[in-house]
Amino acid sequence: MRIHAWLEQNRKEGISLLQKMVKTSSLQGHEQDVQLLVSGKLQAMGLDVDMWEPDGEELKHHPYFCSPRSRFTGSPNLVAVMKGSGGGRSLLLNGHVDVVPPGDRAQWQSDPFSGEILDGKLYGRGSTDMKGGNAALLLAMEAVQSLGICLQGDVIFQSVIEEESGGAGTLAAIVRGYRADAALIPEPTNMRIFPKQQGSMWFRIEVKGLAAHGGTRYEGVSAIEKSIIVIHHILALESQRNTQICDPLYTGNPIPIPINMGVIKGGNWPSSVPDTVTLEGRMGVAPEEKLEEAQQEMASWLARLPEKDPWFAAHPPELTWFGARWVPGSVDPAHPFMEVLKEQYEAVKGEAPLIEASPWGTDGGLLTQLGETPCIVFGPGITGVAHYPNEHIGLDDVFQAAEIIALTIIRWCGIDGGGMPDGSTTES
Amino acid sequence: MRIHAWLEQNRKEGISLLQKMVKTSSLQGHEQDVQLLVSGKLQAMGLDVDMWEPDGEELKHHPYFCSPRSRFTGSPNLVAVMKGSGGGRSLLLNGHVDVVPPGDRAQWQSDPFSGEILDGKLYGRGSTDMKGGNAALLLAMEAVQSLGICLQGDVIFQSVIEEESGGAGTLAAIVRGYRADAALIPEPTNMRIFPKQQGSMWFRIEVKGLAAHGGTRYEGVSAIEKSIIVIHHILALESQRNTQICDPLYTGNPIPIPINMGVIKGGNWPSSVPDTVTLEGRMGVAPEEKLEEAQQEMASWLARLPEKDPWFAAHPPELTWFGARWVPGSVDPAHPFMEVLKEQYEAVKGEAPLIEASPWGTDGGLLTQLGETPCIVFGPGITGVAHYPNEHIGLDDVFQAAEIIALTIIRWCGIDGGGMPDGSTTES
Repeated sequence: MRIHAWLEQNRKEGISLLQKMVKTSSLQGHEQDVQLLVSGKLQAMGLDVDMWEPDGEELKHHPYFCSPRSRFTGSPNLVAVMKGSGGGRSLLLNGHVDVVPPGDRAQWQSDPFSGEILDGKLYGRGSTDMKGGNAALLLAMEAVQSLGICLQGDVIFQSVIEEESGGAGTLAAIVRGYRADAALIPEPTNMRIFPKQQGSMWFRIEVKGLAAHGGTRYEGVSAIEKSIIVIHHILALESQRNTQICDPLYTGNPIPIPINMGVIKGGNWPSSVPDTVTLEGRMGVAPEEKLEEAQQEMASWLARLPEKDPWFAAHPPELTWFGARWVPGSVDPAHPFMEVLKEQYEAVKGEAPLIEASPWGTDGGLLTQLGETPCIVFGPGITGVAHYPNEHIGLDDVFQAAEIIALTIIRWCGIDGGGMPDGSTTES
Repeated sequence: MRIHAWLEQNRKEGISLLQKMVKTSSLQGHEQDVQLLVSGKLQAMGLDVDMWEPDGEELKHHPYFCSPRSRFTGSPNLVAVMKGSGGGRSLLLNGHVDVVPPGDRAQWQSDPFSGEILDGKLYGRGSTDMKGGNAALLLAMEAVQSLGICLQGDVIFQSVIEEESGGAGTLAAIVRGYRADAALIPEPTNMRIFPKQQGSMWFRIEVKGLAAHGGTRYEGVSAIEKSIIVIHHILALESQRNTQICDPLYTGNPIPIPINMGVIKGGNWPSSVPDTVTLEGRMGVAPEEKLEEAQQEMASWLARLPEKDPWFAAHPPELTWFGARWVPGSVDPAHPFMEVLKEQYEAVKGEAPLIEASPWGTDGGLLTQLGETPCIVFGPGITGVAHYPNEHIGLDDVFQAAEIIALTIIRWCGIDGGGMPDGSTTES
């Protein structure tokens, strides 16, 4: 396999590129440096680069806009197109370049942006989520190009900002007009293939009580005790929503669309009965569900609280939606792009891939629902360490993913001049 | 009644004094101004004043010391003794001068230190808790003195700091040597008489979970869900402790010694399973109970959590005691001082007083348990508005309490020269 051989020969340079990407911190608002790095790589590959700062003033009116900011000065998006000769299917390769904060430094063995390699793993914030995946995309494209393989369809590479806060970067690229016949996002899937992706939204619920002195607490109504009823009520909603899920892609997932209670805060004085408790959490949205439907279901469910406790009739909790949200995505598991990807996976790995619905959100739903670009999520990163201290990625996985993606590009976009699907030509 | 007449004639000056005291803010650390005001009053009454800054370095080693600070520069205690002729019973009159912060200014109709009078009520932080009570003490003493009533026993007046944070002021006065045959603290009891006072302590409980991404929350263990089990477990402890209370003084009190959950804080990201929840609350201690016994009972009870959920076997919650605590106090309701006080109450009010055990802590327990000075709590303030916005006190209650206390002083300390217990002499 020429792709495989090329990747082996260029392994050192590939690792070096990934290491540089990881060492270049790219927290929200500071993506420019890593984008320049990636842009340099694309230009070295002879590609024209479209690098622009999204227009927040325009974007913010878009119904799918979700970001804590509306000015993107110093935070450019990046797109480069490997033009095909025509007549083939196009493929969009999307990867986000923003990373979440490192968190508690004390829990990291080394500097969070060390990029150091130990035992075949590269460490650092963003290594797995998702610069390792982005590097796999670049390696795949470079392999195809270096081997002189002329594609029929276009390959559109996107290095976007703002995935971690709700997709404003991918939205900006969609609004700019980029479309394709299919898309792949190499988020950290442990090398599983996700034709469907969960969406999610953040909710806040404020529960009311009645203040009193702690020594005569029976004169008050504890918002903590009332919030317990709310929490149990929401667990019941989660149970009901998940009982209705029968998609085989969720087999083995104990709670396909969870409702996670993430934060609780209430009261401000040990000697007082607390009169407010605030809950914040994340509501999973099924791949075929609309965000608005899920919101409505939560609101209607909370409206039933008086059945559990009459206190809530006169003191209904206040529900708001805030912060980040991810549009769910759903592509038929029998979609032609799925066939191609599965085939190349099996060719490289020697076994069939695991096909699942993702338990977390990505920009995939935006591409599928808004960008008319059916998007599959598949990548080399390790789900369990994304967002955690000591985040890392297995380098072998990066190169295997690159190989699978390269072969997928070739097979999907088609070769000009009838080369073999496996990348070999009559020369090999 | 000469006492009654004197109080009527001096009502204006009495109100003026109370108003000045309330307008003089005396938050923790800023008690000096109001102490100087009170000291001036005592000196005008011809009394020698003992004003001293407690020695924190010495006090802090005392087992009953409880304060967030150990330096009391600028925060003086104040004691003045109205010496008797001898052969009578002594009485200690103790009132704290520190007030709690006003809290949310927006909830006050006027400035929290306005001292304004509307409809017979005087408004301001500290009016009810407990400068109104302190004013009643001063009025009572001044009435007795002005009317030329010579007492046999000493009256020891104490204006102390630090009640709101656990009694360091009263402790300092005890350590300084002040003792008496009985004591009265006019905390805001709604004119009820409390021969027994609840103690209390603040606890903190840290509950552990296991972090995970909210989309795969089943991989984690929610500290919020575990804290619910802890909260219910503690409600069961409260129920058990209160079932054992059969003191008739608690008749009518639905939860004599409550355990109040005051603060809950856990998690820091809506999309994450929370791995820690911190609970803070106030544990009531029965009048005859020792603080250490209550602490031990809580610890032993929490040690039983694994029976409720095996998670707690390997992840026991962490219990600590912090912040303020109040020693409980218990005086036999048949104590001679109780008899005297009840009698004077009935003489003034025309009906028997309500006798109860207090639902909140005071410095009374320190006087009773440590100061060898049996202490009763009785005062004109309104329990329900202490520590709240728009705190106020009824001026008629202040003057009625002053009258009751004046007559109590006379009856308890005894009159030199055989004057009548009601304050009248052969002249009246």
